[in-house]
Amino acid sequence: MRTLQKTHLYSEIHEQPGIIQNLASRTHEEINGLAKQIIKRGIKHVHIAARGTSDNAGRYANYLLGAHNKLVVSLATPSLFTIYNQPPDLSNALVLGISQSGKSPDIVSVVKEGKKQGALTAAITNVPDSDLGKTSDTVLELAAGQEISLAATKTYTAQLTLLAALSSALDQEQTNIQDLHALPQFIEKVFEIESAVANLAERYRTMEHCVVIGRGYNYASAFEFSLKLKELTYTIAEPYSSADFLHGPVALVERGFPVFVIAPDGKMVPEMISLVERVKNQQAEVLMISNHTELLAMADHKIEIPRGVPEWLSPIPAIIPAQLFAMYLAKSRGIDVDNPRGLNKVTKTW
Amino acid sequence: MRTLQKTHLYSEIHEQPGIIQNLASRTHEEINGLAKQIIKRGIKHVHIAARGTSDNAGRYANYLLGAHNKLVVSLATPSLFTIYNQPPDLSNALVLGISQSGKSPDIVSVVKEGKKQGALTAAITNVPDSDLGKTSDTVLELAAGQEISLAATKTYTAQLTLLAALSSALDQEQTNIQDLHALPQFIEKVFEIESAVANLAERYRTMEHCVVIGRGYNYASAFEFSLKLKELTYTIAEPYSSADFLHGPVALVERGFPVFVIAPDGKMVPEMISLVERVKNQQAEVLMISNHTELLAMADHKIEIPRGVPEWLSPIPAIIPAQLFAMYLAKSRGIDVDNPRGLNKVTKTW
Repeated sequence: MRTLQKTHLYSEIHEQPGIIQNLASRTHEEINGLAKQIIKRGIKHVHIAARGTSDNAGRYANYLLGAHNKLVVSLATPSLFTIYNQPPDLSNALVLGISQSGKSPDIVSVVKEGKKQGALTAAITNVPDSDLGKTSDTVLELAAGQEISLAATKTYTAQLTLLAALSSALDQEQTNIQDLHALPQFIEKVFEIESAVANLAERYRTMEHCVVIGRGYNYASAFEFSLKLKELTYTIAEPYSSADFLHGPVALVERGFPVFVIAPDGKMVPEMISLVERVKNQQAEVLMISNHTELLAMADHKIEIPRGVPEWLSPIPAIIPAQLFAMYLAKSRGIDVDNPRGLNKVTKTW
Repeated sequence: MRTLQKTHLYSEIHEQPGIIQNLASRTHEEINGLAKQIIKRGIKHVHIAARGTSDNAGRYANYLLGAHNKLVVSLATPSLFTIYNQPPDLSNALVLGISQSGKSPDIVSVVKEGKKQGALTAAITNVPDSDLGKTSDTVLELAAGQEISLAATKTYTAQLTLLAALSSALDQEQTNIQDLHALPQFIEKVFEIESAVANLAERYRTMEHCVVIGRGYNYASAFEFSLKLKELTYTIAEPYSSADFLHGPVALVERGFPVFVIAPDGKMVPEMISLVERVKNQQAEVLMISNHTELLAMADHKIEIPRGVPEWLSPIPAIIPAQLFAMYLAKSRGIDVDNPRGLNKVTKTW
């Protein structure tokens, strides 16, 4: 087996500072153009079609475009378009397809239908001349370079960064753009803890299952961390919002049950403190990704991310140690991280 | 321990034919009134707030109101309302709260905000004089009788039946109302296989984890079966649409991995056949809930539901054997089915 440092996954994870720097610091004509269209047409509703990692970017958009831009976001149910042939009325919406490859037929179908109904359409993709790109009125290009590893990493953080740029462009008071320009400095710093994350991951070598909890902006992070654990390490990892977790699944927690929490500093902290207290009472073993002193102190194992990043951008630096954790855990299990079983780079679903 | 037949869970599961009969066969003035309001106001968007089992009813509504009524459904992210204080613009929506108890503060907050913004509001609840009921313009009452068991069963099928009645009332061509009136005959029949389900559940006594797959109308069924397995049997059960499952999590499947599939007859059959072929190639052990000959024949273990039920109503009879399966599996594990660990009947989240 190749050394880890020679894998595509390792390279792609480590390309993220440069890619995010590029996306966060420059002005995007296409994004400004799309924002103008949204405002001009009085659009209040964004319908997002995506699968897998890209769907987790859609979950981030759900919170971000809601909290910062008062837009209602609905996540598409592609089978209404492709199998039942009964699409909903999207004529007043922005229909946004998110796909690394731009090739999944179900995602393309949703955007096509939006266009047919007269909706504004856009794509976030790494391949502008893909079916998805060619179908959409506006293409926001990830410009992440080719992604070869089957598990998506750099295209996910690039998707979040473009969504953050879109939200900022829609914000006519321009209060968020400074936050976004300051983001790259935090991304570099994340990698300072890489060897600590590698050591911690090794400890979990025999873990068969876990839950991953985040809420609000970091609801997406819980889903994405969970997906990386499934794809790369074959761990049965289930993501939850802290609130949904308490409505039933908390029954799972027994002594030593692994509960992973992604909870950066921000308005969600009190909620996450009470969640951790609750699962600690049920003797869970808590692994915490955070930059908040009290939350870190409550956990059995901690991964500290840089302090000072605003909550709304925190999913971008917070997912990187999760990617590293999954990669090192996979390595400790002898898994070929570039080719996990059962996966293809382009997954076509209908 | 009490015998199973004396538990609330057992009684409540077996009360379902009567409750569904009552809801499916009569005319509902409140539902007709709500449908008229939706049509009169030209509403095209439904924003649903719910948690746990009620959220799975929301998932059903997402497909049903989309396919039959061309409505776009978004599932609320309550933290935008309660923690970030940044609710989206709901002024042109129907804001629908679904909650058995009507007491979860986050769900009430979403409906309150909708009302404040001038949206049409409605509640589906078992407790009309709850906070949720009192906040909403229209209350659709489940009339399921008090639910005492911590795991919701009869209120879930009652929620689906009321949603089906609402969808039918919105359908001015009245083509679906006959289907709905015929539903109760199928529900009675489901219980004919109860002892077979009990025997099958016993076989899974040592199962620690599984995935549960459904798509389209039965996406909700996958989530609800999974939730019952978690709450009642402490099995790590993760729900997926067949399409989402192929975008990453399929990597989990190895020899003997338990894959539960809920796939009643209908337009989704070809998709589910190819999903089963795929996981069988990876040597999964497939348990199938269906009424489709070929799908049943492909599975290692089968639970046959009545034939002839239209796909759009199939989630109602299809979930009942899943409830029975979870109950009998819990019994075989010596779990007190009325009081699983970690749960309270009313879960208040913010």
